[in-house]
Amino acid sequence: MDIIIQENERIDDLQYKGLRLIQKKKGFCFGVDAVLAANFADIKEGAAVIDLGTGTGIIPILIAGKTRAKSVIGLEIQEEMALMAKRSIHMNNLEDRVSIVWGDIKKSVELFGKTSFDVVVTNPPYMNCGGGLLNASDTLMVSRHEILCTLEDVISAAGSLLVPGGQFVMVHRPDRLADIIWLMRKYSVEPKYMRFVHPSPYKKANLVLIKGARQGKPQLKMLEPLYIYDEKGEFSKEINEIYCRKEAGIE
Amino acid sequence: MDIIIQENERIDDLQYKGLRLIQKKKGFCFGVDAVLAANFADIKEGAAVIDLGTGTGIIPILIAGKTRAKSVIGLEIQEEMALMAKRSIHMNNLEDRVSIVWGDIKKSVELFGKTSFDVVVTNPPYMNCGGGLLNASDTLMVSRHEILCTLEDVISAAGSLLVPGGQFVMVHRPDRLADIIWLMRKYSVEPKYMRFVHPSPYKKANLVLIKGARQGKPQLKMLEPLYIYDEKGEFSKEINEIYCRKEAGIE
Repeated sequence: MDIIIQENERIDDLQYKGLRLIQKKKGFCFGVDAVLAANFADIKEGAAVIDLGTGTGIIPILIAGKTRAKSVIGLEIQEEMALMAKRSIHMNNLEDRVSIVWGDIKKSVELFGKTSFDVVVTNPPYMNCGGGLLNASDTLMVSRHEILCTLEDVISAAGSLLVPGGQFVMVHRPDRLADIIWLMRKYSVEPKYMRFVHPSPYKKANLVLIKGARQGKPQLKMLEPLYIYDEKGEFSKEINEIYCRKEAGIE
Repeated sequence: MDIIIQENERIDDLQYKGLRLIQKKKGFCFGVDAVLAANFADIKEGAAVIDLGTGTGIIPILIAGKTRAKSVIGLEIQEEMALMAKRSIHMNNLEDRVSIVWGDIKKSVELFGKTSFDVVVTNPPYMNCGGGLLNASDTLMVSRHEILCTLEDVISAAGSLLVPGGQFVMVHRPDRLADIIWLMRKYSVEPKYMRFVHPSPYKKANLVLIKGARQGKPQLKMLEPLYIYDEKGEFSKEINEIYCRKEAGIE
């Protein structure tokens, strides 16, 4: 199999069943947040899954590797990123179950149709632009800031794409929690499970994992905190388990 | 000063500036949640404060003892509890700054008028009744369940009672967080600070402290977790500070 790697790219070993990922040397690289989001989803055998704003394709690759999902789509608006993700899918021999679609989250219902997925996963850009001027041609900027889509675009799309009872999984920053909960309810995706991720015990959470159910009954379950490092400054037991071995070197 | 204590009551020392509290021997006793809520409020000198559903009066007594609030009202619907709280206020010589009002949260705007408080504090009943039949004549039941007022009644009252920019402080269960955030936004009380309370590190949060600002700008700040016990099973440093000494013996 021929995989073309460009000069500004590198191949990273995902340390899981031999999966690998193409990333830019200087661009947006996937982080622990994407790995945690992929891991937080409960994906049943035969499920149809979509990842909104897939970037490098890390989430579809991990989900395809870890679950028996029937199909996983990664939707990405940046052509360059979408093409790179496609090459990663090819490199991992996952074309039969994973496809990367170059397109806009705001057009996702037109692209895929309503109620067409069992699970919607997303690790959207975290930064709210406010009034600031940002460079929309910079892929790193687009991956990090709400330039090409807002949090509302993502959650509204999820509400339409999911089947009733379908699962929405998102990782985001705790400072957007009020917006997240408000928007989820607005688009009929009821928050069901919440888990905060802390750098270590006693430090404040810097990520939140949230799972919702389309048209679910209101009842939120708070889960144990997830610590990246333990009191001794070592990777926590759970992080080692998620990464499948000690010091996997990912992120 | 004559304080009448009934046979089914006891006097507890609050271990703070000599403050004391009358409680029923077998009824609802104040807990760490009320102490944390009183402590979470930022009360400026001269502030007008109300505690919605004050029960024994623990929150007004602590706030009057710890801050330079001009006035603190404790609103309580159960006559027996309101009378008992009144006796506690009298016992602590706090009548000049604290008053207990026997009345319904749902009538609070008629009682006190709109935009009449700088701070609204509340430690409301946690249990959502659903369809279950509960005994509304049982003071313990009323203190714990949403029998005489719902979460929406409390937050809606807070939204009307607060001045613009005024502070809302609540302690509640994390499983109501989606409802709390939804209702706060609905009644223009923007969530601004959130702090989860865990029995100890690695255990899931069982209380949430939330602070909002009437007509505030959307931006939520997540604070460090508060642990009741540390890894060694001893009261955490912060709990000792809140209670002002080690093993204060307060529930």
